[in-house]
Amino acid sequence: MAFNIVLIEPEIPTNTGNIGRLSLASGSNLHLVKPFGFELNDKRVKRAGLDYWKHVSLFIYENLDDFYSKNKGKQFVYLSSHGNQLYTAIDYTDDMFLIFGKESVGLPKNIVSANLNSVYTIPIFSSHIRSLNLANAVSIVVYEGIRNLSFKNQTL
Amino acid sequence: MAFNIVLIEPEIPTNTGNIGRLSLASGSNLHLVKPFGFELNDKRVKRAGLDYWKHVSLFIYENLDDFYSKNKGKQFVYLSSHGNQLYTAIDYTDDMFLIFGKESVGLPKNIVSANLNSVYTIPIFSSHIRSLNLANAVSIVVYEGIRNLSFKNQTL
Repeated sequence: MAFNIVLIEPEIPTNTGNIGRLSLASGSNLHLVKPFGFELNDKRVKRAGLDYWKHVSLFIYENLDDFYSKNKGKQFVYLSSHGNQLYTAIDYTDDMFLIFGKESVGLPKNIVSANLNSVYTIPIFSSHIRSLNLANAVSIVVYEGIRNLSFKNQTL
Repeated sequence: MAFNIVLIEPEIPTNTGNIGRLSLASGSNLHLVKPFGFELNDKRVKRAGLDYWKHVSLFIYENLDDFYSKNKGKQFVYLSSHGNQLYTAIDYTDDMFLIFGKESVGLPKNIVSANLNSVYTIPIFSSHIRSLNLANAVSIVVYEGIRNLSFKNQTL
């Protein structure tokens, strides 16, 4: 079982490093879509990913067109604070692509509007907060997917 | 519904900042047990917590004895990479205390050995990884608790 974690134009190197560590821990592949807000060899990426970064199953794309053309026929779901379906309602499948936007503004608006039936959100219980830290959001969604699929298989 | 997130002797300011943001987002209280590896007014705590930090429901303790004496009769569960029960098996209850150790070494060994029936772990699917980032681990456990309790109430 594996998921594909997709970060579109990530901005903060420590988040990408932490998500690399999470990808490896969860048995997921990590897909990064350029442009990034940092250099991928930034020491902060590797420091956050500890000594794990070199083991991450990593795919890099020049832009969104490149990402879509190389992953035709795959199942995509999108995570956004603007989604109106809960992430716990995702029909998780093996090899699914879980797609997250950039830290400052989330997913591109045209992506959200073109995929409304596939946009999910993590509930937030405070009027002070608009969104979670990106790495925390990825962690919640990926481990719910593992729990969900494993529950179907009676193992977690 | 509320959980209590407890960090024993946290070392890394951005993790505590991120967990403050997560505490607020999830409707949880945040309990921090000294000594810390940073000053609580370190700008990195507030930067990671964005402008949310001032809204966090925060409790500070001088040491573990102080924490236990002020929270007698509460329900505690402990999260450790050395646990042998999955976090998905926690019998989550409202007002439960979810207790996490420091980034470098986790919970004190005597705490783990004295509470073996209450120690839980997040599964990791790579031999390269020993543990998740602390803020990511807290996120996974807290949102599973929300899902679990809400599921009992048919809302999530």
